[in-house]
Amino acid sequence: MIYLDNAATSFVKPDAVYEEMMKCMKEYGANPGRGGHSLSIKASMEVMRVREIIGMLFNIKDPMRICFTKNATEALNVGISGYLKEGDHVITTSMEHNSVIRPLNTLKRDRKIELTVVQCNEYGEIDVEDIKRAIKLNTKLLVSTLSSNVNGIIMPVKEMGKIAKEKGICFLLDASQGAGSIKIDVEEMCIDIMAFPGHKGLLGPQGTGAIYIRDGLKLSPIIYGGTGSYSEIIYQPEMLPDNMESGTLNTAGIIGLGAGIEYIEKVGIEKIKKIKYNLVKTLHEGIEEISKIKIYSKNDIDSNSGIVAINFIDIDSTEVSYVLDRVYKIATRAGLHCSLFAHQTLGTVKTGIVRFSPGPFNTIDEIDITLNALREISCNI
Amino acid sequence: MIYLDNAATSFVKPDAVYEEMMKCMKEYGANPGRGGHSLSIKASMEVMRVREIIGMLFNIKDPMRICFTKNATEALNVGISGYLKEGDHVITTSMEHNSVIRPLNTLKRDRKIELTVVQCNEYGEIDVEDIKRAIKLNTKLLVSTLSSNVNGIIMPVKEMGKIAKEKGICFLLDASQGAGSIKIDVEEMCIDIMAFPGHKGLLGPQGTGAIYIRDGLKLSPIIYGGTGSYSEIIYQPEMLPDNMESGTLNTAGIIGLGAGIEYIEKVGIEKIKKIKYNLVKTLHEGIEEISKIKIYSKNDIDSNSGIVAINFIDIDSTEVSYVLDRVYKIATRAGLHCSLFAHQTLGTVKTGIVRFSPGPFNTIDEIDITLNALREISCNI
Repeated sequence: MIYLDNAATSFVKPDAVYEEMMKCMKEYGANPGRGGHSLSIKASMEVMRVREIIGMLFNIKDPMRICFTKNATEALNVGISGYLKEGDHVITTSMEHNSVIRPLNTLKRDRKIELTVVQCNEYGEIDVEDIKRAIKLNTKLLVSTLSSNVNGIIMPVKEMGKIAKEKGICFLLDASQGAGSIKIDVEEMCIDIMAFPGHKGLLGPQGTGAIYIRDGLKLSPIIYGGTGSYSEIIYQPEMLPDNMESGTLNTAGIIGLGAGIEYIEKVGIEKIKKIKYNLVKTLHEGIEEISKIKIYSKNDIDSNSGIVAINFIDIDSTEVSYVLDRVYKIATRAGLHCSLFAHQTLGTVKTGIVRFSPGPFNTIDEIDITLNALREISCNI
Repeated sequence: MIYLDNAATSFVKPDAVYEEMMKCMKEYGANPGRGGHSLSIKASMEVMRVREIIGMLFNIKDPMRICFTKNATEALNVGISGYLKEGDHVITTSMEHNSVIRPLNTLKRDRKIELTVVQCNEYGEIDVEDIKRAIKLNTKLLVSTLSSNVNGIIMPVKEMGKIAKEKGICFLLDASQGAGSIKIDVEEMCIDIMAFPGHKGLLGPQGTGAIYIRDGLKLSPIIYGGTGSYSEIIYQPEMLPDNMESGTLNTAGIIGLGAGIEYIEKVGIEKIKKIKYNLVKTLHEGIEEISKIKIYSKNDIDSNSGIVAINFIDIDSTEVSYVLDRVYKIATRAGLHCSLFAHQTLGTVKTGIVRFSPGPFNTIDEIDITLNALREISCNI
């Protein structure tokens, strides 16, 4: 099987991810923060170490401002629902995932927030002047993806952060696509809140994610419960990360995430970016020479986080993806990628999109095989 | 290390748990429900198989009514916050965990619900007549733990379910302590909503849990986002489990949970109950002969889910637990166990409790070593 669905989840993971998870589960599989005994303390310390590893990756000075969640979706819900109050105005882009669009629309309906979706062009590119024009007196939050999960387009995050900072608006970055191969600096990019999954570009296991909350910012949690701290109070403790980490954490998952990030740091984020782009470029240029295919992604390293999104003209994406899987053993994703507005923007609501998303462990040989498969399909339709 | 902290998390797990998790991550580590390719379909089918395994364990006829969560705390928040509306009255017990007490008190403050906490006796036993007496016209929900995480006392769940059913009240069971060694039948016990973790008695990994929602009952989710389904709608799809499962699941964790439950089914839940009770009984009877110790747990198989809760008279529990860990390499939990009301009920708010919670992999030899350690401590104070 040639796995080109790394935008859904990275597969395979670095060996150390599997090894560290097993070591955790077999050697110190206790409950972190829930006991004073050696195994529990060891588990707590290892979780803390991963907080620090994440902090270093994103230039987050205080690792206690990083709270582990089950996935990026939970983190986005905390960031959005925990921040917005009735009457607040939010600006977002037309390239967002349903993990942003659904919480926002639910709040629009239930909490009477106002929502402006800034329209991007046919490649998903946004004009930051449009964001400026959308700002109103009650604008409290700007939410943007780092890059699109549909076609990989990278957003001008630094400019967005600058605008938000200048206007005193909170800036929430959804780093689900791109973290791990795009350098993120929460200070330089003026990011106030950031949600990210562990299992995509950060090469950790599924069931992991986190939210970063800038110092001084107070969000309401969406989950309340035991935190292993302040057991004597009947409300949620206010200190981070406890405030946002009720119940038992996915300890082994977090440890695996730490190993994933350590792998990235060892190889170097710039090198991973180049490895991925080399695959994307080869695939993109090869596809350009095949007839009957429309490409929805851009082909330059600073505009694309690692996706080639295509359709055979007039053919439903699911059919193509099905043939790639069954005949050629190539795993891609088709259909609507949990991102209705992005498909509206790209003009692919009816057909969906065939998405190729290579990861750092794919090879040029695999891309060549994929191109051959696409050539054959093109000849047979 | 002698690990007697299985009420915090079971350690070790059956070998199959580690093996199946690794097999999942290495062989079919794709994103379930997020693609039509073979690996994603395989992951989806395996997740579905675990839903069915859980369904069989608890006599849940429709496995689609089981939604995976990150832990029991998330499930309890969905059950409580997703069900209660302003002005509703809730009844709960004085033995609940903070994962019940904190969401309820937060709703009491923010959503104006009414809350009655029925007082239990000094062993945590509840008189079901007190529950009946607490019922009011606006009583909508009864929340109870299956058994206490502090002293193991088992609640009269079947009687509670009967009362709730007769009065048309929704019955939410927190099965965090006891699932895996106490037989649960959602039909026989008239359970409408059940929250449970995967990593305690069910012998799965951390980062897993689920909520069961009876057919016909509609709860509001607390997390909204991509579900891999109905991508064309901007609100959360209503069908279960999608409604409650936004974002990527902890696939390997869920697979590990399935292996944990399969182990329980293979050994037999009654046999596991007896293995655990035999350890508890030996420990309990041994401790009764040691001076200067007060025991807060009951010693019969149908009243205790597997905990011996003690204190050396006039000594803080954390000191004892510390000595057990450092000198004798015995892991216990001390302090307040995220359950203020339970400690008030048992009269241990000031000292906390030293909790011994054996699991099915502990041995009588380990209990004997523990008793020797307690005898030595008793002589030295």
